[in-house]
Amino acid sequence: MKKLWSGSFNTETALSVEAFTQSISIDQRLWRYDIEGSIAHTKMLGSQEIISPKDAESIISGLNDIASDIEAGSFVFKEELEDIHMNIESALIERIGDVGGKVHTARSRNDQVALDIRLYLRHETFLTIELIEGLEDVLIEIATGHTRTIMPGYTHLQRAQPVTLAHYMLAYLEMFKRDIERLRDVYKRINTMPLGACALAGTTLNTDRAFTAKLLGFDRISENSIDAVSDRDFVIEFISSASILMMHLSRMSEEMILWATEEFSFIKLPDAFTTGSSIMPQKKNPDVLELIRGKTGKIYGALINILTTMKGLPLAYNRDMQEDKTPLFETVDTIKACLSILTELLGGITFNVERLLSTAGSGYSLATDLAEYLVKKGIPFRNAHEITGRIVRYCIENNIELPQMPLDKYKEFSDKIEGDIYERLTLIESVTARKSLGGTSPSEADRQIRNFLRDYRKIS
Amino acid sequence: MKKLWSGSFNTETALSVEAFTQSISIDQRLWRYDIEGSIAHTKMLGSQEIISPKDAESIISGLNDIASDIEAGSFVFKEELEDIHMNIESALIERIGDVGGKVHTARSRNDQVALDIRLYLRHETFLTIELIEGLEDVLIEIATGHTRTIMPGYTHLQRAQPVTLAHYMLAYLEMFKRDIERLRDVYKRINTMPLGACALAGTTLNTDRAFTAKLLGFDRISENSIDAVSDRDFVIEFISSASILMMHLSRMSEEMILWATEEFSFIKLPDAFTTGSSIMPQKKNPDVLELIRGKTGKIYGALINILTTMKGLPLAYNRDMQEDKTPLFETVDTIKACLSILTELLGGITFNVERLLSTAGSGYSLATDLAEYLVKKGIPFRNAHEITGRIVRYCIENNIELPQMPLDKYKEFSDKIEGDIYERLTLIESVTARKSLGGTSPSEADRQIRNFLRDYRKIS
Amino acid sequence: MKKLWSGSFNTETALSVEAFTQSISIDQRLWRYDIEGSIAHTKMLGSQEIISPKDAESIISGLNDIASDIEAGSFVFKEELEDIHMNIESALIERIGDVGGKVHTARSRNDQVALDIRLYLRHETFLTIELIEGLEDVLIEIATGHTRTIMPGYTHLQRAQPVTLAHYMLAYLEMFKRDIERLRDVYKRINTMPLGACALAGTTLNTDRAFTAKLLGFDRISENSIDAVSDRDFVIEFISSASILMMHLSRMSEEMILWATEEFSFIKLPDAFTTGSSIMPQKKNPDVLELIRGKTGKIYGALINILTTMKGLPLAYNRDMQEDKTPLFETVDTIKACLSILTELLGGITFNVERLLSTAGSGYSLATDLAEYLVKKGIPFRNAHEITGRIVRYCIENNIELPQMPLDKYKEFSDKIEGDIYERLTLIESVTARKSLGGTSPSEADRQIRNFLRDYRKIS
Amino acid sequence: MKKLWSGSFNTETALSVEAFTQSISIDQRLWRYDIEGSIAHTKMLGSQEIISPKDAESIISGLNDIASDIEAGSFVFKEELEDIHMNIESALIERIGDVGGKVHTARSRNDQVALDIRLYLRHETFLTIELIEGLEDVLIEIATGHTRTIMPGYTHLQRAQPVTLAHYMLAYLEMFKRDIERLRDVYKRINTMPLGACALAGTTLNTDRAFTAKLLGFDRISENSIDAVSDRDFVIEFISSASILMMHLSRMSEEMILWATEEFSFIKLPDAFTTGSSIMPQKKNPDVLELIRGKTGKIYGALINILTTMKGLPLAYNRDMQEDKTPLFETVDTIKACLSILTELLGGITFNVERLLSTAGSGYSLATDLAEYLVKKGIPFRNAHEITGRIVRYCIENNIELPQMPLDKYKEFSDKIEGDIYERLTLIESVTARKSLGGTSPSEADRQIRNFLRDYRKIS
Repeated sequence: MKKLWSGSFNTETALSVEAFTQSISIDQRLWRYDIEGSIAHTKMLGSQEIISPKDAESIISGLNDIASDIEAGSFVFKEELEDIHMNIESALIERIGDVGGKVHTARSRNDQVALDIRLYLRHETFLTIELIEGLEDVLIEIATGHTRTIMPGYTHLQRAQPVTLAHYMLAYLEMFKRDIERLRDVYKRINTMPLGACALAGTTLNTDRAFTAKLLGFDRISENSIDAVSDRDFVIEFISSASILMMHLSRMSEEMILWATEEFSFIKLPDAFTTGSSIMPQKKNPDVLELIRGKTGKIYGALINILTTMKGLPLAYNRDMQEDKTPLFETVDTIKACLSILTELLGGITFNVERLLSTAGSGYSLATDLAEYLVKKGIPFRNAHEITGRIVRYCIENNIELPQMPLDKYKEFSDKIEGDIYERLTLIESVTARKSLGGTSPSEADRQIRNFLRDYRKIS
Repeated sequence: MKKLWSGSFNTETALSVEAFTQSISIDQRLWRYDIEGSIAHTKMLGSQEIISPKDAESIISGLNDIASDIEAGSFVFKEELEDIHMNIESALIERIGDVGGKVHTARSRNDQVALDIRLYLRHETFLTIELIEGLEDVLIEIATGHTRTIMPGYTHLQRAQPVTLAHYMLAYLEMFKRDIERLRDVYKRINTMPLGACALAGTTLNTDRAFTAKLLGFDRISENSIDAVSDRDFVIEFISSASILMMHLSRMSEEMILWATEEFSFIKLPDAFTTGSSIMPQKKNPDVLELIRGKTGKIYGALINILTTMKGLPLAYNRDMQEDKTPLFETVDTIKACLSILTELLGGITFNVERLLSTAGSGYSLATDLAEYLVKKGIPFRNAHEITGRIVRYCIENNIELPQMPLDKYKEFSDKIEGDIYERLTLIESVTARKSLGGTSPSEADRQIRNFLRDYRKIS
Repeated sequence: MKKLWSGSFNTETALSVEAFTQSISIDQRLWRYDIEGSIAHTKMLGSQEIISPKDAESIISGLNDIASDIEAGSFVFKEELEDIHMNIESALIERIGDVGGKVHTARSRNDQVALDIRLYLRHETFLTIELIEGLEDVLIEIATGHTRTIMPGYTHLQRAQPVTLAHYMLAYLEMFKRDIERLRDVYKRINTMPLGACALAGTTLNTDRAFTAKLLGFDRISENSIDAVSDRDFVIEFISSASILMMHLSRMSEEMILWATEEFSFIKLPDAFTTGSSIMPQKKNPDVLELIRGKTGKIYGALINILTTMKGLPLAYNRDMQEDKTPLFETVDTIKACLSILTELLGGITFNVERLLSTAGSGYSLATDLAEYLVKKGIPFRNAHEITGRIVRYCIENNIELPQMPLDKYKEFSDKIEGDIYERLTLIESVTARKSLGGTSPSEADRQIRNFLRDYRKIS
Repeated sequence: MKKLWSGSFNTETALSVEAFTQSISIDQRLWRYDIEGSIAHTKMLGSQEIISPKDAESIISGLNDIASDIEAGSFVFKEELEDIHMNIESALIERIGDVGGKVHTARSRNDQVALDIRLYLRHETFLTIELIEGLEDVLIEIATGHTRTIMPGYTHLQRAQPVTLAHYMLAYLEMFKRDIERLRDVYKRINTMPLGACALAGTTLNTDRAFTAKLLGFDRISENSIDAVSDRDFVIEFISSASILMMHLSRMSEEMILWATEEFSFIKLPDAFTTGSSIMPQKKNPDVLELIRGKTGKIYGALINILTTMKGLPLAYNRDMQEDKTPLFETVDTIKACLSILTELLGGITFNVERLLSTAGSGYSLATDLAEYLVKKGIPFRNAHEITGRIVRYCIENNIELPQMPLDKYKEFSDKIEGDIYERLTLIESVTARKSLGGTSPSEADRQIRNFLRDYRKIS
């Protein structure tokens, strides 16, 4: 098949080369943005009288027809036409004749593909933020119902201090709030219009890039045409942000996989979200969570993929950059699927409140409360810590819990300890008293939830 | 040596464990921030009457003494004291007695180390931005001197269209402007105070985190104590931004390595920035540029390092997170060194202006100008492109350049071509006429430079 | 749809979960190996009288029918049946009734999928080695024709010493020989049979794993059933080897992209292997080479993908491991496509022999010969090196080449230099005299080619 | 300071360049190998009469002196001398005069550094294998003592089937056996001598590379001098193997972190291998295991580091390659430290045998035994699986374990179930009966241990 760029060539492209270099199997998902961009570009060309109003109308109408056909599934993409741009331009020329060839005036595939990806990613960034917000809503819902549900807080996966389930869920909320903030920052840099850079040097034609940018809703216009076609920072930045997001999802998944073990027994996953074994009939496996955790690798891999591809490339466009699309599309698809399914799953979890409470109380998790009690009695923290350590050791050796130790025994370790110690050494007191900003007390959880609903989401 | 946390332990830590788990060999560079944080924390404890004003004074004075000793190089860091926090607290207790043990009231190493890294990275982010600005200044300087220096612009490393050297340098400027913008965005999330989260649950003591945050110049306070000690997003984000920055530096280095070859001969590196061969006496190698390009791997590696380490970690603090420091410190050191040396080197480069010009003109680099000429005569771009292609092929076969082809020959390809074609087909006209926003014309370069100096740097 | 493992479940799998957890869209390419494995397994079950000969026959016949249908394209894969294993087993039961359910006796999907991937990868490793051998053949062919073609050898991309084109090509040959050796080493570990490990603990049924292994051509049987289903080392190892291979291809591509620039002009790529520009009609871009270089990122990404996924997974099978297939399949497809197209392209390259020769001679590339001349006259190498350096500087300042300097001038630098120096300072002498083992002399290239053809390929 | 290669230079290297390009702070650990290589090289030069026997003796004696001084700590490495090679050669010339400059005859730093790294890595590969063997010994020891200790086997971190602790430990043994096999394969490619390739083209001097190779114990000599100085495959391969090894260590660490939780309570770590909290006195944290798991990131990062650095480098030596040393050294140090400490720790673990047993029996972990019972009675596996599923669901709903269900109830699900079912449904029978090759029966563990001790370690 004759290529649109074949004028100076003697031989046709080898078929194997065609198959190797084509990107239509990958980039056809950009069709909507390619057409949207071409329409805006055509309007500008018409408005600037670079092409006639009649030609512009004809092109726009032809592009709209193509869009309808693609939507309807009746458009045939051809590998020998390389990419989405050439497929659409060829179809346009086929439909409206040589005038179709005017759509590519004052642009190049170099700036066109940069435009398409930006339009696509702008849209997907919006959708991703919405999905994260959906997950946040479920976290807020669980937190709201569990500001007084006591559970063990862990460090090093060893029980450390009692916390509330609300506090735990709100920790994840903070992570996702950062993810959204990051995506909004990336968005600024995605939402910059490269079109009009042409191949790399701009054009001698009298274009109006601001006009096109306004039509397409871009906040900024790329300032330098060489950079405009060489830049894939926004792709890398998006995948970086997605990597951090997936890291968060992997942590949450790991946690819930642990909680769903018989050993922890903190939660029960709904049957509809577990799958069975082909050999062990009793199994209810947390496959969804495992897959989310496992898919973290895919996103980290995508990040290394695009970073490696861009390393050491001279300016301006190099064909290597065509390889930006697979990692980007895989990232977008994966994080959207993971966010969506995790939100559903999380909403269906049953928390074993009794088990959470009973484990919170064991394992000397009130030791810090004892140490802080001593601090309030004037003992330097480091000494208080050491005294508490010795008390804990004594309890372990004598197989008793802290609240079970008699007062006179306590006094052997420190005469500052009084009868009021027993009021302090309860789970509810331990949790309630941690009123420091961001601490685990119910009042702090209430505050965080209130702030989220009022300020963060702008719901008064 | 007795550990400060050894109260409940029967046996001492194995020496091999001490060596394996210690971080003092790595984190001692945080000493300044550790002490700064402890002083602010102590002031808060005093102000809230959690400790007495006298104790606070004594602690602060002790910490200042330690700072002086470290500054003077007379402080001995001990591996058996594990980390920077324990080294300083131990020294404090040694110097001022048990009261020194009060400094650790209402905090934990978990929030303390998060604080230290944030203070450190806040500072280093500032320095990095300053170094990038220094590089930008050199680019602006070169661009200012070369808005009319014509050189070949490349795509696919094939000569594409003539551009100016200013245009080229300003393309890199755009990349570095984005790097700074990104670092400023990360900065917002670095500049959040974790102190007061304590181990993970907050404290029962009456702390005032806002007070401490104000003293330390933090814009935000972490909202959730579990998240505060589990969060390393800001480290990852910084290294992500550094990865993109290094990718830019690697592209620039690659470019200049090519330009310094005898084949390109576009630039001459100053002798002081090249190194010789141990066997080939004539060599002047662009080692600095090669090392910058090569060090890109180190930063990408650091990014994968921290992402891998954080993958799948349950809340809250896990010791794995101690491994955040090596990749972070290596990243900070590497990008600062690369920015600094590249700025120096770039300032010393001699551009071979004649060679740039002579290569710009060869290779049918004016073909696009011919195509756009035809477009202006009303020929649809795609046809204009094809006609030009055929003309180029004819020229190649007959071994002539475009401006050498006689008019009647031109007319055989298209009767729209007139005598004015010869005015169009000059390098200076090609470059000057690309006045589209961001295009390669000198007027556009002037505009970009002016905007940079006036708006971007806020120099009126 | 009712799952084969649904016995103990109350609710059906959510549709979203089905879509999220299914792998049939990915793993259907394993069908051939799944059936091959099932047939061998069935033969073993029959031979051990775990199932009757009649049942075995019936199962095998059913499986063969299914294979024919898939081959013919008439088999419908169903997402709700999750994976390739369940799709085939379900079809089997549908076709031959309950007896079909006997095929899964004494195995589990855990060992079954491990078997399928190993059979697949064993085959693909063979194919990859064959493709590398094809590339080696072209390298040998070029080398054979160019043992006396002189070109500049580079270090730091600066011309260093003259070498032959054969020598250059044979350097790549060495890399590819190592790639094959590595793949053969990986092959040993791929070719280990996991089947019979069942879910993780083996079986109480009287299986004969050696029998199955023999039928399937496996050299080893995995020794421990827990490891057998937890192990994906062989996938990582294969992708590691592929990463090194792609690194080699990226180096070769970079080199040829440089050589194809107008600045180097060392080679001409065939028109059929370059592509044009949508805007610049004169361009002939080395897209194939750029894409190979760019796809390196994909393989490095795949490596990080699988390494990340496997990090920190407890034993035995976890669903995360389902994510091994995308990176593996992408790796296999990519390296095969790159090897194949590069072999074709390399065969079509035209070397510009005159240009290679003329560049070899410039730039004081004979300086090392001068230094070695002095060494032979008894001057310590380091002094010889320094003297040569001073001579080169003198030549540069006086704008002459080494062979143009008169003898009396030479003698000012060292009285050991005699008239015979002029015989030494020729390109042909420089190259011919480097007869050290592996050196650039034609005789050494001849030796390497001969050895390759005789010993390496076992063609006498 | 005057550089040894400064002959043709007008200006001195900038100090900042010196600091940026120096590698002596990194590569000084190669001193032993640098001297070993230089001595062998000198012997060859002497034996070939390229230098006189007297000069050779003098050089060797000088090098030995330098070695003694470095060993004694009295040698001063200088940054301005760039690297280990120049530091030693300079010292040599300083000590024995100009004759010292003869040591660099017929070599270059390009082949010299390749030699040094290979000698270094050859040694470290040996040490690494020994450390893995040490870990294997502890695994064998634990396995030997626990072939009849029953514990739950997991898939998806859900209890699946009872296995033995020996079986579990032997699964890890298999992984480590593969690690050693892989390192031995890499070793073949490490153990190739590059020396004699000189800068890239070999030499005109009459060297005998086979002589040097024999002295240094190399099995192979690199066949092509360009490849010899461009090749870092062996570094990447080693780090790849180390990545898989670390992945294994991370899995084992994760497992033991879980086992050491109060929730699992499978093991107790020795006090000497846990560390305390600065705030919670009761904590005994598995820091060593967490750090091993966390350090996995460092090795993956090192792998990406070196792969990125080598991507797209043209032949032959480029200075980028200097950046191979940091990732390599970090990898070697990290894996050795992790292997060593894990071996110590593992030897000190106490297994809670009662807890292992009691958890093995709960959770319907004998369901597969029931299914296989039905298979032996002639029911197709898939139906047996479904019947068992229904039985398990009945048991869950009625809150009984499988062995508690009365026979008539069993018969309602399948009339093939007889009284012998109760003998089958015991933990000991479940484990003992899994005699298939590699299965969990004690006899299979015995066999694996025996084979390991007899064949694998060649101890009869």
